[in-house]
Amino acid sequence: MNKKSYTGSEIAELVKGEVIGDGSVVIEGVASLKDANASQLSFVGNRKYQNQMHESTAGAVLICKDLRDEPHNGKCLIVCDNVDLSFSTVIGLFAPAPAVYPREIHDTAAVAENARIGNNVHIGANAIIDAGAEIGDNSVVCAGCYIGQDVRIGTGNLIYPNVTILHRCVLGNNNIIHSGVVIGADGFGFLPTPTGIVKVPQTGIVRIGNNVEIGANTTVDRARFGETWIKDNVKIDDQVMVAHNVVIGENTILVAQCGIAGSAEIGRGVILAAKVGINGHIHIGDGVQVAGTSGVVKSVEPGKIVMGTPAEGQREFMARYTLPGRFEKLQGKVAKLTAELEELKSKLQ
Amino acid sequence: MNKKSYTGSEIAELVKGEVIGDGSVVIEGVASLKDANASQLSFVGNRKYQNQMHESTAGAVLICKDLRDEPHNGKCLIVCDNVDLSFSTVIGLFAPAPAVYPREIHDTAAVAENARIGNNVHIGANAIIDAGAEIGDNSVVCAGCYIGQDVRIGTGNLIYPNVTILHRCVLGNNNIIHSGVVIGADGFGFLPTPTGIVKVPQTGIVRIGNNVEIGANTTVDRARFGETWIKDNVKIDDQVMVAHNVVIGENTILVAQCGIAGSAEIGRGVILAAKVGINGHIHIGDGVQVAGTSGVVKSVEPGKIVMGTPAEGQREFMARYTLPGRFEKLQGKVAKLTAELEELKSKLQ
Amino acid sequence: MNKKSYTGSEIAELVKGEVIGDGSVVIEGVASLKDANASQLSFVGNRKYQNQMHESTAGAVLICKDLRDEPHNGKCLIVCDNVDLSFSTVIGLFAPAPAVYPREIHDTAAVAENARIGNNVHIGANAIIDAGAEIGDNSVVCAGCYIGQDVRIGTGNLIYPNVTILHRCVLGNNNIIHSGVVIGADGFGFLPTPTGIVKVPQTGIVRIGNNVEIGANTTVDRARFGETWIKDNVKIDDQVMVAHNVVIGENTILVAQCGIAGSAEIGRGVILAAKVGINGHIHIGDGVQVAGTSGVVKSVEPGKIVMGTPAEGQREFMARYTLPGRFEKLQGKVAKLTAELEELKSKLQ
Repeated sequence: MNKKSYTGSEIAELVKGEVIGDGSVVIEGVASLKDANASQLSFVGNRKYQNQMHESTAGAVLICKDLRDEPHNGKCLIVCDNVDLSFSTVIGLFAPAPAVYPREIHDTAAVAENARIGNNVHIGANAIIDAGAEIGDNSVVCAGCYIGQDVRIGTGNLIYPNVTILHRCVLGNNNIIHSGVVIGADGFGFLPTPTGIVKVPQTGIVRIGNNVEIGANTTVDRARFGETWIKDNVKIDDQVMVAHNVVIGENTILVAQCGIAGSAEIGRGVILAAKVGINGHIHIGDGVQVAGTSGVVKSVEPGKIVMGTPAEGQREFMARYTLPGRFEKLQGKVAKLTAELEELKSKLQ
Repeated sequence: MNKKSYTGSEIAELVKGEVIGDGSVVIEGVASLKDANASQLSFVGNRKYQNQMHESTAGAVLICKDLRDEPHNGKCLIVCDNVDLSFSTVIGLFAPAPAVYPREIHDTAAVAENARIGNNVHIGANAIIDAGAEIGDNSVVCAGCYIGQDVRIGTGNLIYPNVTILHRCVLGNNNIIHSGVVIGADGFGFLPTPTGIVKVPQTGIVRIGNNVEIGANTTVDRARFGETWIKDNVKIDDQVMVAHNVVIGENTILVAQCGIAGSAEIGRGVILAAKVGINGHIHIGDGVQVAGTSGVVKSVEPGKIVMGTPAEGQREFMARYTLPGRFEKLQGKVAKLTAELEELKSKLQ
Repeated sequence: MNKKSYTGSEIAELVKGEVIGDGSVVIEGVASLKDANASQLSFVGNRKYQNQMHESTAGAVLICKDLRDEPHNGKCLIVCDNVDLSFSTVIGLFAPAPAVYPREIHDTAAVAENARIGNNVHIGANAIIDAGAEIGDNSVVCAGCYIGQDVRIGTGNLIYPNVTILHRCVLGNNNIIHSGVVIGADGFGFLPTPTGIVKVPQTGIVRIGNNVEIGANTTVDRARFGETWIKDNVKIDDQVMVAHNVVIGENTILVAQCGIAGSAEIGRGVILAAKVGINGHIHIGDGVQVAGTSGVVKSVEPGKIVMGTPAEGQREFMARYTLPGRFEKLQGKVAKLTAELEELKSKLQ
């Protein structure tokens, strides 16, 4: 724990913000607007929460420039450029010490004789480093992990407990792999034949670039041949499924429980919201955004926003979504027409 | 195995039921109506299955009061108040002995020197109890589990093999955590900045109350700050994803493959059926029921039943669902109107 | 590595294909049409990719009989009956050596005294074989696996690292179980009672037949009583959820992230595409195909193809899917009718 206290003014200085109100307030932690007490700091990042601020009992509140306001209850308001980044900084001030992974090989780890372990590496209790595997300098392989035969792991990686990385897969540098992840299980390939279903050998690997983060219990399957490839700076949430031969471009974000079918290509800077499914063999262009729970059946042009199942543009989606209301109206019109026609007919008789 | 036999009358006495027909039938096990033989007991909990009963070869059948009936084939019918509870009791009579976890620390477990292990605790083979962790009396931590630094686990917990609980997370008493669960992986928080995607530190914890059950391969992420909190008596199925800072109220049920996005608040006694997605930062009121596969985008008032994606009330959903049929009808009306108008016009010429 | 080279003609002989063009080309690996260089072989399995072939720089291309063509750029075309099978054969020629699992018990494995281990078995590092478990001849149980009390595993199984198989479950022969799989966690059974939610004991097991493959992080829950049963030749992808008392027929395929609720019965030769949900207690007939992301609420007759949520036939689905366009047309007709009626009325006045 590095619990300590800062005044509102000290915090403002740290985040290059401006104090409005009482900068002498003493802050000892962070909390939400709803929960914060007089010695805690909270934040408003969104106009939606601005009213909540004026009812908050927080000792200080970070707010972004655009929402510049009077301090709540005469307390301390700190105006800053990027409230999310600044709030992260303040969280860091009060955060408990992170977990410590001593840079040594635990007695109970099973490290193959011909494995190559770099300098300043942590190999946790009961971790297994199989034959021919290589762990780069400054990497942390936590307790219970299995690192397969001839796996190559670069420098500065943080691999949490109980991760499985199978034979020949390759990780670059500075990746974070969360617990329960499986990298390099066989892709799902079978051929129907007259004598039954035949397994298609999956002889390729998974390649992970640099600065990638992969969430808990996510699975990334090895390629049929060649590589399943997750490029630099990709961020993947929990329980995502990446099938064989998928390629994911730089800076792409995959939110929880997404699934990407075999040989799909995902561009750079794409965002797949939670529970999205991507069909096999299609191409999702750079910068595409897919709304949560959508099922994308066809390739999507760069920069598009798509939603629904099968996924379509926002305009098409809204046309579909608003149908019930528009239908009722049309039904009314038809009823009116029918009545008018009847009236006309009876007049004419 | 505690295999033995009971007469129909003995079973009726145990479940406080009433025998109709032959109470002397000897029962040695349970099975479904379809599969049960003359020495097995089955049950009817639902009018839908009542006909099946009369064709069943089961030696005895439990039935609820409301469905009171003649015994099938002149055999033994046992009428009881709560057929589900009574059938569970009978299953228990014939169940094989449960797995046994000897109350000791296995030789191969790696227990940190400063970990505190209570009385009557099982620590399984190759389990890891990291520095500063605390395991309460009568708790079972099975083989291959990783219990992180400064984790606090209360009394009477049953933690199945290969569970991962990360640093500083807190479990109350009498919880059941199934294999492959990951508690306390980082929440998924990133900020876009001009120089790339920046990780938002996740410095909080996960708190689990008492009498909670968490299904296999479910993940519960730690809070950005403060706590992700699962309150007492919550029951979670397999492969559910609970994001950072989510709060789940007492007695709520989350069925398999649900996902709850960051900072959502789920009330008490809520039921999320399978594969439901809940948007971030929304509030699901007490007693809400969400139909399977729904995507809930907006907050839901207490007691409501919602379905579909985006989720809506049953009436709105049915209006949407029945559109194709109603559309055909309206199309027919318009065709008729068109013909009538044509006829009128040609008459007038 | 068994890297070597073959001529186009040699490969044609191996796959019983016919060379068109230059059979003397030397092939040293495989790649996609897009990526292949002059010493690599690629394939065309689908008319869609036939144009791509003519632009490919691949040294040789496998093509199926139906698409018989001129060789691209005067190079080597190999015509064969089943291009998928033949390409798998060629991949095998160039595949790196598979991972090797020495047929012995690793020093760090924890094998219970009364466990029965067959001949020619691999038990990996830090694997745990609990009391009374049985591992058949020629089976591989990789590092970090937990094999529970009284589990019975047949012959020739390949169980990848960090798999969990719980007490009393039964596997036949020649199955492949991928990392992170959990077999035999409790089914999700709870009864609401006046004094709270009560757990329904799950006293049955999971039975896996022969030649079954189960993908990474999939969970198969034990039965309430009796068996959850996965029959011979079933192929299951990653992150699939199979609930208690489900029965899955022979040769059925479950693609990634499917979920099957309790007591559902899935026939033989069924295909559930990715992310499908199947309701509890329903029956999916033999040969049924369910489109990706569908939610199946009611039983489905053998041989049907269903899609959408709630799932319906293709015709019903298309009627629903094309509604917006058909609605616009009808709206146009109604507008025209209205105008005509107005015109008629004003003429008559």
